[in-house]
Amino acid sequence: MTDTDNVIFVGKKPAMSYVLACVTQFNEGNSNIILRARGRAISHAVDVAEIVKNKFVVDTEVKGVNIGTEEVTGDQGEKLNVSSIEIILGKK
Amino acid sequence: MTDTDNVIFVGKKPAMSYVLACVTQFNEGNSNIILRARGRAISHAVDVAEIVKNKFVVDTEVKGVNIGTEEVTGDQGEKLNVSSIEIILGKK
Repeated sequence: MTDTDNVIFVGKKPAMSYVLACVTQFNEGNSNIILRARGRAISHAVDVAEIVKNKFVVDTEVKGVNIGTEEVTGDQGEKLNVSSIEIILGKK
Repeated sequence: MTDTDNVIFVGKKPAMSYVLACVTQFNEGNSNIILRARGRAISHAVDVAEIVKNKFVVDTEVKGVNIGTEEVTGDQGEKLNVSSIEIILGKK
């Protein structure tokens, strides 16, 4: 879980951009992919994981899901807490 | 995990409504609470779990997180897939 090459940060792009990134990583021989997202993108990361698993790389499964809180600095330099998620997708 | 009394469905209300529901359930003696959400409310459910754990009931931890897909029927009777999440919060 320490190999940062396998991490895909999910943000505001369409879900299919991240699905494509996942499929590419699996095709390159990676056996695990970590999807990371913060704030509202969390729902989006779950969508991406489900689409990859159900439609594109059917021999994958969700190996684990972690949630947490990260501190970010806002526009006026204030500290904000945002929720984060980490979804580990791997070959069965 | 089969006792439905412990399930809290997270939707569009403010996060603190659900936080209060969790705190109440723990105070009533429940040792586990399951937060469930679908679609965009998924991010909201993660926020609720993190707020409960970090600010209100500090002897709780996330025991598990499951993600999945549910089929719902849209306005015109069409079938839609929505992502779902289940967060199990429990006493340490």
